[in-house]
Amino acid sequence: MGKSKVWLRGLSLMMLSLSLNVSSWAQETQSSSRQTLLQPELNLMPVPASAQMGSGSFKIDSSFNVTLTGHSDTRLEGALQRFLDRLGKQTGLLLPPLHSPTLGKLRMVVRVDHDSKPVQELGEDESYTLEVTPGRVNITAPTDLGALHALQTFLQLVGVSPDGFVAPAVIIKDTPRFPWRGLMIDVARHFIPMEVLRRNIDGMEAVKMNVFHWHLSENQGFRVESRKFPKLHQMGSDGLYYTQDEIRGLIAYARERGVRVVPEFDIPGHSTAWFVGHPELASAPGPFTIERRWGVFDPAFDPTNEKVYKFLDEFIGEMAKLFPDHFFHVGGDEVNGKAWDANPKIQEFIRAHDLKGNAGLQLYFNKKLQGIVSKHGKSMVGWDEVLDPTLPKDIVIQSWRGQASLAEAAKQGYRGILSNGYYLDLGWSAARHYAVDPMGDASAGLSAEEKQRILGGESCMWSEYVNAENIDSRIWPRNAAIAERLWSPQDMRDPASMYARMHVIGAQLEWLGLTHQHNYTRMLHRIAGAASAEEFNALRTLADVVEPVKDYTREQTATEPATSEMPLNRVVDAIPLESRTAREFSEMVDKYVAASCHDTTLAAQLRAQLILWRDNDAKLQPLAQRSFLVKEVAATSQDLVAVASVGLAALDALEHGGNTDEAWKAQQSAVLQEAQKPKGQLLLMPASAIQKLVDAMSAGGSCAAAKS
Amino acid sequence: MGKSKVWLRGLSLMMLSLSLNVSSWAQETQSSSRQTLLQPELNLMPVPASAQMGSGSFKIDSSFNVTLTGHSDTRLEGALQRFLDRLGKQTGLLLPPLHSPTLGKLRMVVRVDHDSKPVQELGEDESYTLEVTPGRVNITAPTDLGALHALQTFLQLVGVSPDGFVAPAVIIKDTPRFPWRGLMIDVARHFIPMEVLRRNIDGMEAVKMNVFHWHLSENQGFRVESRKFPKLHQMGSDGLYYTQDEIRGLIAYARERGVRVVPEFDIPGHSTAWFVGHPELASAPGPFTIERRWGVFDPAFDPTNEKVYKFLDEFIGEMAKLFPDHFFHVGGDEVNGKAWDANPKIQEFIRAHDLKGNAGLQLYFNKKLQGIVSKHGKSMVGWDEVLDPTLPKDIVIQSWRGQASLAEAAKQGYRGILSNGYYLDLGWSAARHYAVDPMGDASAGLSAEEKQRILGGESCMWSEYVNAENIDSRIWPRNAAIAERLWSPQDMRDPASMYARMHVIGAQLEWLGLTHQHNYTRMLHRIAGAASAEEFNALRTLADVVEPVKDYTREQTATEPATSEMPLNRVVDAIPLESRTAREFSEMVDKYVAASCHDTTLAAQLRAQLILWRDNDAKLQPLAQRSFLVKEVAATSQDLVAVASVGLAALDALEHGGNTDEAWKAQQSAVLQEAQKPKGQLLLMPASAIQKLVDAMSAGGSCAAAKS
Repeated sequence: MGKSKVWLRGLSLMMLSLSLNVSSWAQETQSSSRQTLLQPELNLMPVPASAQMGSGSFKIDSSFNVTLTGHSDTRLEGALQRFLDRLGKQTGLLLPPLHSPTLGKLRMVVRVDHDSKPVQELGEDESYTLEVTPGRVNITAPTDLGALHALQTFLQLVGVSPDGFVAPAVIIKDTPRFPWRGLMIDVARHFIPMEVLRRNIDGMEAVKMNVFHWHLSENQGFRVESRKFPKLHQMGSDGLYYTQDEIRGLIAYARERGVRVVPEFDIPGHSTAWFVGHPELASAPGPFTIERRWGVFDPAFDPTNEKVYKFLDEFIGEMAKLFPDHFFHVGGDEVNGKAWDANPKIQEFIRAHDLKGNAGLQLYFNKKLQGIVSKHGKSMVGWDEVLDPTLPKDIVIQSWRGQASLAEAAKQGYRGILSNGYYLDLGWSAARHYAVDPMGDASAGLSAEEKQRILGGESCMWSEYVNAENIDSRIWPRNAAIAERLWSPQDMRDPASMYARMHVIGAQLEWLGLTHQHNYTRMLHRIAGAASAEEFNALRTLADVVEPVKDYTREQTATEPATSEMPLNRVVDAIPLESRTAREFSEMVDKYVAASCHDTTLAAQLRAQLILWRDNDAKLQPLAQRSFLVKEVAATSQDLVAVASVGLAALDALEHGGNTDEAWKAQQSAVLQEAQKPKGQLLLMPASAIQKLVDAMSAGGSCAAAKS
Repeated sequence: MGKSKVWLRGLSLMMLSLSLNVSSWAQETQSSSRQTLLQPELNLMPVPASAQMGSGSFKIDSSFNVTLTGHSDTRLEGALQRFLDRLGKQTGLLLPPLHSPTLGKLRMVVRVDHDSKPVQELGEDESYTLEVTPGRVNITAPTDLGALHALQTFLQLVGVSPDGFVAPAVIIKDTPRFPWRGLMIDVARHFIPMEVLRRNIDGMEAVKMNVFHWHLSENQGFRVESRKFPKLHQMGSDGLYYTQDEIRGLIAYARERGVRVVPEFDIPGHSTAWFVGHPELASAPGPFTIERRWGVFDPAFDPTNEKVYKFLDEFIGEMAKLFPDHFFHVGGDEVNGKAWDANPKIQEFIRAHDLKGNAGLQLYFNKKLQGIVSKHGKSMVGWDEVLDPTLPKDIVIQSWRGQASLAEAAKQGYRGILSNGYYLDLGWSAARHYAVDPMGDASAGLSAEEKQRILGGESCMWSEYVNAENIDSRIWPRNAAIAERLWSPQDMRDPASMYARMHVIGAQLEWLGLTHQHNYTRMLHRIAGAASAEEFNALRTLADVVEPVKDYTREQTATEPATSEMPLNRVVDAIPLESRTAREFSEMVDKYVAASCHDTTLAAQLRAQLILWRDNDAKLQPLAQRSFLVKEVAATSQDLVAVASVGLAALDALEHGGNTDEAWKAQQSAVLQEAQKPKGQLLLMPASAIQKLVDAMSAGGSCAAAKS
């Protein structure tokens, strides 16, 4: 095997030559400035710990076969069958089924040393070696888990070439940076059906995430069948809950894909739905109804009531048997204390037990709760509010409020996982998520021993504004960037490389049944109704360059308070949370300005795009007259005309000179500023890039140095 | 309810005023010349027998409810639940589940007089009345079947408006023109999985087709589990067959949607797969293997062997119980007679029994077969080869070879259904299928009594070049045009109206899970591999204007003989069978030329399209260098440059004059002729429209009258 060519985008030659010692990666934090973009790249996501290119490629054709040597079990067999199905879909080739008589040579050989644990454990060996040569593919791994990862890597290597579908020759030695790489889905605010969870677990497997954190109870719903306390799901779910059989099915499905399932029952706050059937557990007398609004609400468990602990002991005992994972999440976040303040008996209890106010009361609750969880053989996980040095050290802190609490927990001897920075519902760009590192910020200064306690991280899909139809597009493809952050070497941090690979992997994810791309189109069709091709394209052109308002401003900009009963059928619900078109336009502007506006090809591309935008509204307006869902974005469509016109004027001036004094710039900037105000809860993304064109003008009307 | 506005596209005011007597429609055959296009139209497909517009519209919101009065049964209940689910999907609204407490007024009331037959029968009453007023929707129907149709009509009425999702006020009285409106799917040449059949039956329900004809055995596969003769499916299917439980499931699924299921076991030819497990039934000694090629093959049952009839008696007895429909299809087509010629014993039998050669032998076989089918309580259906005046009159002739045999059968007293003209695999335009009428051609001269014997028709999806991935795009949306032909008044035949409605209904069909649109995109992504947005769009632009070669020329133009093992992953497999872009371009050219080339807006639109095509190849070529599946269409891409350049030159001359003598025209026409030769089994569709631009030039270089 030759070593002459190195293809891996974002990895320098020097790094690759050092990289066969996989464990050295985590320490290589300073080398990002040395990163070089090498073409052609491997479209792998997450990037493996090491990759060394060989010569030639392995061709996929009807002679393909796969053989297990060494350890074998039903999970591996199933994984190989799924692999063949997926490879067949991805290539459109008819491949022989598993265990067909092998007529020719062995083509892919998978050798696993031994099974992984019956219930998947934190920190099991997930490493693998994948060797692709023109004649054969070898996968070796200590356990099933590594083999599962290797098969996914191979699927990402396969691409179309001048000679058919091939995988390039390469030796990959790979192992994750962090052992806990999770995705949390909130199935309580909006119920998310089983088939949607299954396809998202398929997506997790594809990007090597290994923890599905299932947020199962909330003010807005209690989503699990309890046989001990059936009023919980019967009265707290509107009939939208998972049966225990379904849950066991999903856990088995996840295990087949190397994914642990960690359940969360969020208490003592976030718990209204429990109290619909069991008001006796609450701090206020009730009665309670399922909450329909979004926000932080008052109802909370009564920590002073011994019957509450008896109930939780029985309930957690039942759930501890249903969910085999060693970790059990109890939530613990955002207790506003109002229900406790309002109950004199509870305040008397605080005084009598000399607790430090409501925080002390929650600590009292947490300690008893930890005892119950521990009694049932589990380690407790909680959001960072539960952190207190008097709790046993086996608990795990999930940090949502900031990286400081993660570092603080590690210093105090607690293990932690990072979610701050990974909230998918906030509408951040993939690059912004990608820049967040569990070892960054406050954690960077920890000792090696303390750093060991940082287990990894979890992206979080809170579901105020997602349902079965649009959840995939809120999770994917951005979640792949977070998955890479948690798997790949820390110094992989070039956003350009990440985006290039993310778009390829994102398209591949649709082969798994994920709907992030085609449901976008389908939802636009609903919004457009019976439209001409030109009208529909105009809607698509606009939708492609807007994003929903960020962070928590959707609530703040709503004309009426949102509820769980509001339809999610608007443009703001259909569009991806990050505009690829606007990002690529912005990059083009940067290149153009950086080259002192001399590149006429770039100028022509910018002009064509700006003309398309300027002329788009005229095509869209007839549709806005017919559809209330289009009418809502008509003002934004007119803003697009305005900003595109500014962009064209700036481009004219940059190319040909013109009367563009400071007053002109101020006037153009004012137009752009106005267009950047959210309308219909949408942000018009190209405005900021066009501002860069305006800013590039020198006083004399020629291209100035770019301000970056 | 006002009667002031008539919206129905394609129906004249006069027709509507006459139309409340539904039965009068079938006779109204001369009025198409009086058809008027009225705006805005109702996007209904098939067009109902009569529609009378009211004033205002009915709004769909969270107060929507539906109530059954009169007859009720589980099918109706299920239909209402499916209706609510579909309405919710189509609008994105959260609708209250069936049987929610009705807080406000009744909004939709469905009244059915009585159940239909336990096993759906040919000719049951399928009529319904659907009355939409701003306050309420009333559906009345004699049986479940009419109510099912009414719910589908209502779903087509619902659209987005300035005020939300609404259905326009209207009174529709509807009944089908023909009682047998079928879709045949060949699941034998390529196995088609259950879920694909289910979604296609959903599509049939949406366009009011009522017979699923299941072509279950062929040279290439035997697809049904037989418990009496398990070697049939075990040895004749490569493991790709339906279990009897699955079949019962599909029949129940179809019944819930008002669709009968007619099985076909094609004998005595088309039967190689039977003989793999049962060579003793064949006319030659065997052994036999499953056929992998396409075509007409020699193996055939031995009609002289009494054991064959004993076998068929037992087999048909088993299948007659499995398939409850009264009709049982025995195929009977394309027996080439070679196996009979080659067997001296069979030839001796023909002489001994004084049969008229092989045709006489097949008639002998058919008579005995008819006896068996009849003994098991069924009426026999056969392709038109089985027609013979000595057979009993209860058989049904399915005409695939031409309309003459349908008329001939009717004259002889046989019932018949038309499939000639409805072969979906031949790649005809929807308009060409739409123009074929079961009462047209030879049938037009039949007596009223003879006409009664023409039961309707069936579209046929033969599966040489279709699989689970692309079958939907070969069936839909064109099948909706055939469905309309079989349901709607005969004088509905304006292709412009049909296309306008078909595109709207076609998009709606994706809500049912049909994949004709998004699998096209997905297959192009596979062909493109890791492509830039610009490269992918260039591939799409080319793919949008090519069609597969027509009729049976795909075999003739293949570089190697096609087999069932060949991948269907090429551009020719991915594209729709009819190019909407090319058709709409051609219509634009017609309009432009008809207006003596004076319409500058049209000229600008034509020019923009031609420039896009001319410049497309430069964007596509880098991809053609990387993907073998794109490389295959590189020559066609260059042809698109050539024809677009001719188009631009012609447009220049038409707009501005120029040196365009006969020599010039001949030269341009030669380029267009050359580009119309198939390459990569693709036809470049815009070439013929561009020819019209060239032809529009007068000798002096100005716009001549269009030759149509």
